[in-house]
Amino acid sequence: MSDSSLRHRKGEITLTVRGPDRQPLADQVVTVAQDRHAFAFGNIGFDFVDLVGGPAEETTSVESFGGDSRLDLDRLGELWLDVFNTATLPFYWGRYEPRRGAPDTERLTATARWLAERGVTVKGHPLVWHTVQPSWLLGLELDEVERLLRARVRDLAGGFAGLIDTWDAINEAVIMPVFANGDNAITPLARARGRIHLVRLAFEEARAANPAATLVLNDFDLSSAYECLIEGVLEAGVRIDAIGLQTHMHQGYRGEEYMRQMLDRFARYGLPLHLTETTLVSGHLMPPEIEDLNDYQIPHWPSTPEGEARQAEEVERHYRSLLAHPAVQSINYWGLTDRGAWLGAPAGLVRTDGSPKPAYDTLKALVKGEWWLSPTELRTGADGTVTVAGFLGDYTVAVGDRATRFTIDAPDTTATVDLS
Amino acid sequence: MSDSSLRHRKGEITLTVRGPDRQPLADQVVTVAQDRHAFAFGNIGFDFVDLVGGPAEETTSVESFGGDSRLDLDRLGELWLDVFNTATLPFYWGRYEPRRGAPDTERLTATARWLAERGVTVKGHPLVWHTVQPSWLLGLELDEVERLLRARVRDLAGGFAGLIDTWDAINEAVIMPVFANGDNAITPLARARGRIHLVRLAFEEARAANPAATLVLNDFDLSSAYECLIEGVLEAGVRIDAIGLQTHMHQGYRGEEYMRQMLDRFARYGLPLHLTETTLVSGHLMPPEIEDLNDYQIPHWPSTPEGEARQAEEVERHYRSLLAHPAVQSINYWGLTDRGAWLGAPAGLVRTDGSPKPAYDTLKALVKGEWWLSPTELRTGADGTVTVAGFLGDYTVAVGDRATRFTIDAPDTTATVDLS
Repeated sequence: MSDSSLRHRKGEITLTVRGPDRQPLADQVVTVAQDRHAFAFGNIGFDFVDLVGGPAEETTSVESFGGDSRLDLDRLGELWLDVFNTATLPFYWGRYEPRRGAPDTERLTATARWLAERGVTVKGHPLVWHTVQPSWLLGLELDEVERLLRARVRDLAGGFAGLIDTWDAINEAVIMPVFANGDNAITPLARARGRIHLVRLAFEEARAANPAATLVLNDFDLSSAYECLIEGVLEAGVRIDAIGLQTHMHQGYRGEEYMRQMLDRFARYGLPLHLTETTLVSGHLMPPEIEDLNDYQIPHWPSTPEGEARQAEEVERHYRSLLAHPAVQSINYWGLTDRGAWLGAPAGLVRTDGSPKPAYDTLKALVKGEWWLSPTELRTGADGTVTVAGFLGDYTVAVGDRATRFTIDAPDTTATVDLS
Repeated sequence: MSDSSLRHRKGEITLTVRGPDRQPLADQVVTVAQDRHAFAFGNIGFDFVDLVGGPAEETTSVESFGGDSRLDLDRLGELWLDVFNTATLPFYWGRYEPRRGAPDTERLTATARWLAERGVTVKGHPLVWHTVQPSWLLGLELDEVERLLRARVRDLAGGFAGLIDTWDAINEAVIMPVFANGDNAITPLARARGRIHLVRLAFEEARAANPAATLVLNDFDLSSAYECLIEGVLEAGVRIDAIGLQTHMHQGYRGEEYMRQMLDRFARYGLPLHLTETTLVSGHLMPPEIEDLNDYQIPHWPSTPEGEARQAEEVERHYRSLLAHPAVQSINYWGLTDRGAWLGAPAGLVRTDGSPKPAYDTLKALVKGEWWLSPTELRTGADGTVTVAGFLGDYTVAVGDRATRFTIDAPDTTATVDLS
């Protein structure tokens, strides 16, 4: 199903450009520029929570990563916004509400707003999961856990509606009832009531609280198990908006052929595919025998020149191959800088000292170069029309200091725009 | 959940034994003996098809195994019936109906009847599968394949009702839509319409044709994938009567702890567990890197003295541990003799020359020894009662040449029996 020409990512629009007097501007030089990709080029925005929202009031002992306090907000924001248009913010229950009844709403709201003001689509991760759990949930009755979980899903999906309209509704449901790498209150609930019960809970509560939300089923298990879960969920009548596919490749890039076959398997369900968690390291690879990536704990995992060269090459191959598959709607990279990266891995696109790695430049050269229309002068015809071809997304057309926006959202369309 | 005392397998009954005059037989010596286990100790009965039903009329090039023509029917029957009470007969589509419209009904009916007349419960395997397929099915339209598949399921389940009331309704649905080890017409159907569609098709057609049937969902994939499939199937409202768990251990016995954990995972659904396909070899082990067991093809796979000793020990450990788990309702061993065994493996309990291996004697010593009540003399009390303790199953009580049957089907019951 792949098409490396990326023609399915592109469109062409014939604009009739008119002046403030609604008359076509014949034979005029206009400047056309792309403002935004329709495709979601995402990254986590965890670092911004402290930088925008200030330090957390509650301290917590649960797993925490993504908190680069070395770069200031301006520099981090510049690096981030130069490439990405979609940010995932952390709503892990144990970090968001380490003390029962005292959720971290204000800092997350401020961060989401800061990103939204800069044109970034904000996504929340995850509403339901069994890891990074608050300790106060342990020991409660199953009914009480389910009641609290439902309330959390409603409160988040409803409370952030309009600011955050995309959520990983449930994370890693395949392993949820048999997860054995840490006590938590969600695994026993999933074991007693079943995976589909938990999936339905997540989607139905979130949907009721924010009917406009895009709700994602997300998993790292890309085997037949996930297919079986998806088939069961769909058969049960639960509406899911996208299939989330994690690809933390700390153990090595899996290659285009693996990805194509994997995407084909999940594209069968006719749903958009979101590559929700993408990692390619710029250091040595994690040994293949590690099953739960969390079990690999080393004091120092350096980024190396050879690793950085390999990472840059793999990032390019990976993004090209993913965009070539029409079912893919978003790619979310898992971290901008190496500081505070998950597992201490050199997974970032920026080094700990704040300098971009080759992978950063490579990705930027695709997203804002090869796949992007930089300001370009075109000349309208005698009828005031000009044809613009480019990647699907938002554009501006300007003559002098008069400008207006338009969108390329289909292979071949026409529109009339009035400069004002 | 395991209990090695096997108390859940046993019961006690207090019988009031009466004579033909309906008076209690006080202070009398009675002989009590077990006739049958309630637990299904099964084996495949493929060898019997040729021996009872005669040679096949149609020749076929599809995979075939289980056809020991070296032992005669008396000897094979004796070895088989001394240990087992439940037989699985082969209904692989490609072998059962190698020529379209000419099913092998007569031979299978004769074989099933021969077994049933000897007190054996007969099971059919499998109604729906993607392997051992007839070549005439290839190239037909999906709708036609589905129509023919539905007709086959109905014809078999309905046509054999009363003689065969247990079926593997569908085999290996987890891999069915992504199976890549041989062209067949069922994989494309499963890919296009989904696993749950095929499972529902199998169960609903079979149920409609034989409402009394015990219908089994059977798989070799014992991972989370199978759990997810089961949850989806149950959520979809398909009624399944037992969960079938294959354990072909050509690559080595997996041990009690693996089995206990695996059984616990599948016991969560509250359904009986059938260990449908059990293999432990008495020769060298298949290398662990083989993924599809069918890919291991060697000219000669001998049974060895060391292998036979190991097999005997493992058969004992395996059966003890499976019976200890209350959810397990049947164990079906996959072959009696090594002749014609699947993959040419020394998987049988009897050598190619017809002599029993140690594993045969070990298993018989459990099933018809330690777990069995051989004829035993007991004395009734003054009120004509006698208490019999034993494994759940059917028994006979006799005084002289007067006898009658009774059943132990609960931990502690009473009954009155009249000798006649």
